[in-house]
Amino acid sequence: MKQIAAILLTLALSGPGLCAAEPLPGWRDTPVRKRLLDFVTAVTTPGGPGYVTPAARIAVFDDDGTLWPEKPRAQGMFALQRLRVMAPGHPEWRTRMPYAAALELGSKYLQEATDADVLQLVATASAGRTQDAFRQDVRDYFATARHPRFGRPWTQLTYGPMRELIALLKANGFRVFISTTGSIDLVRVLAEEMYGIPADDVFGSSVVATLREEDGQLVLRRLATVHGLNDGAMKPLTIDLHVGRRPILAVGNVNSGGDIDMLRYSQQPGVPNLQILIRHDDFEREYAYDEPDGASVKAANANGWLVVSMRYDWLRIFGAE
Amino acid sequence: MKQIAAILLTLALSGPGLCAAEPLPGWRDTPVRKRLLDFVTAVTTPGGPGYVTPAARIAVFDDDGTLWPEKPRAQGMFALQRLRVMAPGHPEWRTRMPYAAALELGSKYLQEATDADVLQLVATASAGRTQDAFRQDVRDYFATARHPRFGRPWTQLTYGPMRELIALLKANGFRVFISTTGSIDLVRVLAEEMYGIPADDVFGSSVVATLREEDGQLVLRRLATVHGLNDGAMKPLTIDLHVGRRPILAVGNVNSGGDIDMLRYSQQPGVPNLQILIRHDDFEREYAYDEPDGASVKAANANGWLVVSMRYDWLRIFGAE
Repeated sequence: MKQIAAILLTLALSGPGLCAAEPLPGWRDTPVRKRLLDFVTAVTTPGGPGYVTPAARIAVFDDDGTLWPEKPRAQGMFALQRLRVMAPGHPEWRTRMPYAAALELGSKYLQEATDADVLQLVATASAGRTQDAFRQDVRDYFATARHPRFGRPWTQLTYGPMRELIALLKANGFRVFISTTGSIDLVRVLAEEMYGIPADDVFGSSVVATLREEDGQLVLRRLATVHGLNDGAMKPLTIDLHVGRRPILAVGNVNSGGDIDMLRYSQQPGVPNLQILIRHDDFEREYAYDEPDGASVKAANANGWLVVSMRYDWLRIFGAE
Repeated sequence: MKQIAAILLTLALSGPGLCAAEPLPGWRDTPVRKRLLDFVTAVTTPGGPGYVTPAARIAVFDDDGTLWPEKPRAQGMFALQRLRVMAPGHPEWRTRMPYAAALELGSKYLQEATDADVLQLVATASAGRTQDAFRQDVRDYFATARHPRFGRPWTQLTYGPMRELIALLKANGFRVFISTTGSIDLVRVLAEEMYGIPADDVFGSSVVATLREEDGQLVLRRLATVHGLNDGAMKPLTIDLHVGRRPILAVGNVNSGGDIDMLRYSQQPGVPNLQILIRHDDFEREYAYDEPDGASVKAANANGWLVVSMRYDWLRIFGAE
């Protein structure tokens, strides 16, 4: 009984909302960390002015550049590897763009390609595969593939501070979703292991699949056609489709401005809410880049969003080394 | 400590898989009930030949006619009430079909209308509403609306035996989803209260919504345009979109044959799976109807599905009275 009493005492001492002994250990003790903790405390304090019922505690995270590096985009590396395997059967790719450029330049091609370009590569590289076979392709690739700069498996390159934030939110009654501009089917295979988020709580860009009867079984086969790019103004629409409620917390990153609409959509009058924008300003530990027009940071300043500096706000970038 | 030991003993005695003292009390002790219990025991028995890892325990249920009555369809009644409120502003409906017929005949119109017809009524009846306002409209309607024959609130007319099955599955590590041919947005508002299934684990037919900036806020407004009817061959595709894994258990009902593809899709070689088809053969306690071509029952016989008779397999139909 002593042990149980000790546990109850620990829970009682940890205060309302924040159950972990020291939440967010990978974050430096900055005003950013304080605002995160204050928000979680407020929405979980019954009777308080910022209280939100558990059913309404919805958080949505972007993926590439928000939860793991987007340089180069992982789905692009996956597609390039598949295209190389398929190339001998497609001699026309030697002269047809973008395949010729992608095959010749590899990850350098990905640096200049748009999200739509990369998704089209994924669609082409997986055309004709069943959904089950595609998921196995993804598992096989990421079981051995390593990031070209960091030399570590992609699945070990999730941002530790963001995993801590996801765990803190879940421990405080939040449902956490991933809205990726990458392939929905690819991220779903990895999300449980990488972020502790089940496949059905991930949504993103997709290709067209068709239902076919083969050997007496119904299977879904992928086509080379992109169905939808989950970016910009599409993000509130896919949140509505997959979640069916407005988030009170939305997290994106500075790159293309593609998360602005999602963050704005989570700002509702009369309901406590928080928006987080990650800046890649850590050239030594990760990357340093901004937007040519600065649209995301401008939107953050205009709307009171929390801007996170990877360099100054995070003690560590990857995992819990 | 004695109390805790007693709890542990109870858990140990309850055997693998089936945690409840007497599972499925609303089901008669028939071979159907035994097959359901045997399936749950098999997939949850580690080391057994039918074992399935928790992550792969995915169950998908149809809604109308599978979890609650579909005569008349609840979303049709909701749409009719909204159309009546809107009618004074739409004098053209007096002579335009199907609005003239729907307004004049009411629930009699719904008897002959197809699922596509009814969804179009919902789209028209909610056009121009924001998604947030629509969800409040649904809450308001079902707070007072009663079923025309049974005289009870719709939310009290869920099938008790099916709620027990959902609870049994969840207690045994299944994730349970609803795939409805009705409006995704309507069922989501009710599913938590009626079935204990959160909004984001419901998917179904949808209308087109547009993202707009109004008074400095981003909102989603509904159009009168149907986006997709979640029926027949669409059901495997929406399962893939919303769940991202194949179900091992699929449940539908005899009516239009619209659940056949979903049930077939859950039959995968090499993976334990079960398909359940509900027959409405209880004229006294609910309804009695079949398909003109008998396609669903034929498919059940050809594929070894479990056919449930509401009359003979269920002790009670509604709730736990």
